[in-house]
Amino acid sequence: MAKVGIIMGSDSDLGIMKGACDILDQFGVEYEINVSSAHRVPDRTAEIASTAVDRGIDVIIAAAGVAAHLPGVVAAHTPVPVIGVPIKSGALSGVDALYAIVQMPKGIPVATVAIDGSANAALLALQMIGIKDKGIKEKMIAYKEKMASDVLAKDKKLQELGVEGYLKDKEKK
Amino acid sequence: MAKVGIIMGSDSDLGIMKGACDILDQFGVEYEINVSSAHRVPDRTAEIASTAVDRGIDVIIAAAGVAAHLPGVVAAHTPVPVIGVPIKSGALSGVDALYAIVQMPKGIPVATVAIDGSANAALLALQMIGIKDKGIKEKMIAYKEKMASDVLAKDKKLQELGVEGYLKDKEKK
Amino acid sequence: MAKVGIIMGSDSDLGIMKGACDILDQFGVEYEINVSSAHRVPDRTAEIASTAVDRGIDVIIAAAGVAAHLPGVVAAHTPVPVIGVPIKSGALSGVDALYAIVQMPKGIPVATVAIDGSANAALLALQMIGIKDKGIKEKMIAYKEKMASDVLAKDKKLQELGVEGYLKDKEKK
Amino acid sequence: MAKVGIIMGSDSDLGIMKGACDILDQFGVEYEINVSSAHRVPDRTAEIASTAVDRGIDVIIAAAGVAAHLPGVVAAHTPVPVIGVPIKSGALSGVDALYAIVQMPKGIPVATVAIDGSANAALLALQMIGIKDKGIKEKMIAYKEKMASDVLAKDKKLQELGVEGYLKDKEKK
Amino acid sequence: MAKVGIIMGSDSDLGIMKGACDILDQFGVEYEINVSSAHRVPDRTAEIASTAVDRGIDVIIAAAGVAAHLPGVVAAHTPVPVIGVPIKSGALSGVDALYAIVQMPKGIPVATVAIDGSANAALLALQMIGIKDKGIKEKMIAYKEKMASDVLAKDKKLQELGVEGYLKDKEKK
Amino acid sequence: MAKVGIIMGSDSDLGIMKGACDILDQFGVEYEINVSSAHRVPDRTAEIASTAVDRGIDVIIAAAGVAAHLPGVVAAHTPVPVIGVPIKSGALSGVDALYAIVQMPKGIPVATVAIDGSANAALLALQMIGIKDKGIKEKMIAYKEKMASDVLAKDKKLQELGVEGYLKDKEKK
Amino acid sequence: MAKVGIIMGSDSDLGIMKGACDILDQFGVEYEINVSSAHRVPDRTAEIASTAVDRGIDVIIAAAGVAAHLPGVVAAHTPVPVIGVPIKSGALSGVDALYAIVQMPKGIPVATVAIDGSANAALLALQMIGIKDKGIKEKMIAYKEKMASDVLAKDKKLQELGVEGYLKDKEKK
Amino acid sequence: MAKVGIIMGSDSDLGIMKGACDILDQFGVEYEINVSSAHRVPDRTAEIASTAVDRGIDVIIAAAGVAAHLPGVVAAHTPVPVIGVPIKSGALSGVDALYAIVQMPKGIPVATVAIDGSANAALLALQMIGIKDKGIKEKMIAYKEKMASDVLAKDKKLQELGVEGYLKDKEKK
Repeated sequence: MAKVGIIMGSDSDLGIMKGACDILDQFGVEYEINVSSAHRVPDRTAEIASTAVDRGIDVIIAAAGVAAHLPGVVAAHTPVPVIGVPIKSGALSGVDALYAIVQMPKGIPVATVAIDGSANAALLALQMIGIKDKGIKEKMIAYKEKMASDVLAKDKKLQELGVEGYLKDKEKK
Repeated sequence: MAKVGIIMGSDSDLGIMKGACDILDQFGVEYEINVSSAHRVPDRTAEIASTAVDRGIDVIIAAAGVAAHLPGVVAAHTPVPVIGVPIKSGALSGVDALYAIVQMPKGIPVATVAIDGSANAALLALQMIGIKDKGIKEKMIAYKEKMASDVLAKDKKLQELGVEGYLKDKEKK
Repeated sequence: MAKVGIIMGSDSDLGIMKGACDILDQFGVEYEINVSSAHRVPDRTAEIASTAVDRGIDVIIAAAGVAAHLPGVVAAHTPVPVIGVPIKSGALSGVDALYAIVQMPKGIPVATVAIDGSANAALLALQMIGIKDKGIKEKMIAYKEKMASDVLAKDKKLQELGVEGYLKDKEKK
Repeated sequence: MAKVGIIMGSDSDLGIMKGACDILDQFGVEYEINVSSAHRVPDRTAEIASTAVDRGIDVIIAAAGVAAHLPGVVAAHTPVPVIGVPIKSGALSGVDALYAIVQMPKGIPVATVAIDGSANAALLALQMIGIKDKGIKEKMIAYKEKMASDVLAKDKKLQELGVEGYLKDKEKK
Repeated sequence: MAKVGIIMGSDSDLGIMKGACDILDQFGVEYEINVSSAHRVPDRTAEIASTAVDRGIDVIIAAAGVAAHLPGVVAAHTPVPVIGVPIKSGALSGVDALYAIVQMPKGIPVATVAIDGSANAALLALQMIGIKDKGIKEKMIAYKEKMASDVLAKDKKLQELGVEGYLKDKEKK
Repeated sequence: MAKVGIIMGSDSDLGIMKGACDILDQFGVEYEINVSSAHRVPDRTAEIASTAVDRGIDVIIAAAGVAAHLPGVVAAHTPVPVIGVPIKSGALSGVDALYAIVQMPKGIPVATVAIDGSANAALLALQMIGIKDKGIKEKMIAYKEKMASDVLAKDKKLQELGVEGYLKDKEKK
Repeated sequence: MAKVGIIMGSDSDLGIMKGACDILDQFGVEYEINVSSAHRVPDRTAEIASTAVDRGIDVIIAAAGVAAHLPGVVAAHTPVPVIGVPIKSGALSGVDALYAIVQMPKGIPVATVAIDGSANAALLALQMIGIKDKGIKEKMIAYKEKMASDVLAKDKKLQELGVEGYLKDKEKK
Repeated sequence: MAKVGIIMGSDSDLGIMKGACDILDQFGVEYEINVSSAHRVPDRTAEIASTAVDRGIDVIIAAAGVAAHLPGVVAAHTPVPVIGVPIKSGALSGVDALYAIVQMPKGIPVATVAIDGSANAALLALQMIGIKDKGIKEKMIAYKEKMASDVLAKDKKLQELGVEGYLKDKEKK
């Protein structure tokens, strides 16, 4: 049964949101994913959100650009935590989406991550699931250890190759 | 029968939105006015918007602050034009509300006016009604002429009193 | 007889404003379209605006970039509603145009849409005309239903192809 | 045993963060609360975060103003979800704190709420705990119903008193 | 015969614009001053600008707040240099006025000064008049020398009184 | 003898500033042009500014990007009017340069034009020279008439070719 | 002999800059302090900066508001490190000063601190002096330890008094 | 023994930070350089900072993008001066990094340079070292003289080639 619901306002957001899917796949957590706009199909969006608990969804990730109402509208219809991903698009480069998602009024929070931060949205969802699921929490600890060792490996390589060597090596790839 | 619907996300917006009511009263146009949040009572908000046509509403004015989703959510549920009023509140002084209202995606426009521009929202609603109602259009022309003569009167007074005299006279009031 | 007037400050705005023309064509609503700057040909711009009512224009769409005075200047000369389209251009990416259009002082509203939001400007004009023209209002309802079914079709396809399949299919097009 | 950890960068943030405490008290969820700066006592902050799991903390709320590093630094030291509250202070009115909290790099998310949004931070924490705790989830549903009925009551009062009556009544309080 | 024309969009700008009048009085340069909005009395504004050369006006100072179109509209109607003063007002604190004045398109410059910089607008007008009027240029040199000696006097006082003494002395005044 | 001094902070600004040279050439007004940084050669910059009057310079155009101090520093050393051109460069796209040029403190104005607005800087300089030079003022009137007829010609062509025809014709060029 | 030079563009900055003086007094480091504007007394400012090395100055702190050129202009005239303090003043609340100080072009750095961050400017100056002066470095270590113990004391008090008790205790003071 | 420590949050910052290395190499000053994130390897970052004094480091340059906590976190762990370089990356183009670095709270300064200003960070570090090292201070004076003569050479070439000639010559290179 799916634990995470992913919903995005437009299929143009899918390229970014694949980053969230990849993380969830890596952790072995099931998810549903829908295109469902807050403005073009408001009733269906309300229904997806209202019935999320019934489908066993623990947390919802909602992504949208420009006047990004989707995360807040979803949060209005469900008691499960909603994570909002502002998408960079249009003339304002995502600042509009960030403000429209993060500045929610009292009573209806949206857990906002960085502009285009789809991978972090998934990691945050997993941290939330980790509250009840020890296995996920342990995988999260392992994920963080892997990140740390990756940084150490890069630093070691920098010490070995020097600045110019490292940059040349990077260019090759 | 009401021609204009006014809807606001919080009763804290009422002080500003009275500016719209005053203009509509002055033009003798009926309106309904509701407090109905896009986030706290989403279903009722959807219903108010969806049934606006049935109640004879020609145009809706929707006002909200911070992550101001109300105008866009209302516009999602009705074919009548929706005017959005960003309300100044919170740390970002209304820029968040402005972006959340004006940057609507393709398909669902919101006619946005200035931050706290409730009087202009009403005037814009009247201009729209003036498309079908000649009487309103004539009142609009008269309103603009009155504005013009007010400016001319102020300028005449400035010529008579001079800069210091005018400023002193203003202070008295 | 034309119902909508489109006016833009520079012929460099025409590529964006074609988006408005396409929508009006789709709805079968006639329009006039002019290049006429508020700064380079102020008298002619004033004349176009002042005589709009006489030409049967119900609503004007005015587009401009940078210090975008055109919509406000047009609104100063006519009692019909004016829709402003901020054009993205120059170092400030359209924020200057947005502020110059939306922040109109009391008495002279401009119905502002998103930066480069020409299609929405046309849809908003049609919603206004729909106040008096039932046929247009019905077409608007149909347009919204079409948008909704397009989103549902995309979502259905996403369920069928999966994330990677959908993205590959999109790339092909 | 405490379920929520609240940590703030300065005791000047306590007035705002009381808003989170009040919500948690209302829901009957225990919390620990500490003043511990990321910059002035970095080791102690690291220790509080690193040992949170051992103390049974399910979720941490971290609040800070200006160059608000605290939420990110706390998130670096724990696998539990961290909620960040940007505090409005200084010349930039909290935009600096918002950016410093929300724009976290890949791997270390912070669930950001609105500037000064302490109550929402607590509600979000409760939604997260609700993933494993049915009682909390039910209280959340009740909380949302209460919010909705409050809005409906205000609207009813507005219909009864009218705009001027409502505003006068508000002033009295 | 007046050499400088001062024009402002609203009589609420007069308090700030008195700063320009004071400088012109100090230099003994005559000026005319008018309240004339670009939006409320567009034809009269156009006429004031168009006939400025005939009245012997060498330079025009135009001040406006929010969507500040006045300086640009005036510049559209005259070959004399136009100085724009963005007025701080409304939710955006004058950034809207600044952008609307300074970002003029090619062909119609406006010489923009700081937000609320009315004294500098007058000084700039005097520098322009100084191009043809040696007496004004010499007064400008004297004005700059006076400014310099004022700074030196303050510094001397600071050396004598010390930091605390200086601050106490300032408080007294 | 040169009438206009052009000074820029870096030779990377020359591509933009050629726009000013072209206008001055077109009007037949002589100019001097220098690369001279406020930070790298402060003494020479001070000297160029201080001796401008002696070289018969009527007005100075100063261009700079990022922390654009050059126009203000030049204005500190001369009684002639200084026009500032903010150059778009670096991460902030010229907003930094705009603020650093336009927000001058009382006593030392800089006549600021749009970001990258070099042509307008030259036109403004010519308007200033037109205060004493009737020939230049007449050329300015002719320049404005030419601009107006160019717009009218474009509009005429648009009426003839229609929207699609005009856009195709533009692409060809 | 003075080790730190403090220079500010206006005596209105002195209230803020006293914060730097207090820190330097606390560390027992001598300083000179001058009011000297980059625009009103450019030659004297250049002289103060150019001769700083001769007076034994190790580091200069320069403070200014709005178009804050002073720190950059000082840095242009000296090889010693210059610390810039953007002062909050005017319509833009110090963002203009921040950009004008921090965005220095290649070759002439200014070490920028927070808006109104005068105490931090002094601490940074002391850290620089600590490079050669072990006594100062040790005092800096002690200063940081004192800060840490102050935070711990506040946290201890919070644990003792609780949230409401702490807030009440704070109000009393 | 290394005098300067360079630390960056990600190896993607290395291309920019090479600009600092080049300057230090040019001045013959040794440096260590590490990739060490404040969030992914917080303990190691703390250790590098805490032990900097023991390794003879006089000054640290820390670079990071987006929610750039690294410079502040490093400064929290050392009494030596820390220079922060905001890196341009992501949707906000480095404004987030700038605010997160420069707006440090009282007690823990970071000497902030321009966005992507790595060369200036190195020059600032050298100016600090110049406080105790006369040889470095003299090299700094020579560096500034070289910069000045480069500008003079460019200006000389501009006088010889003219505007068009100079631009053509530049294109060739």
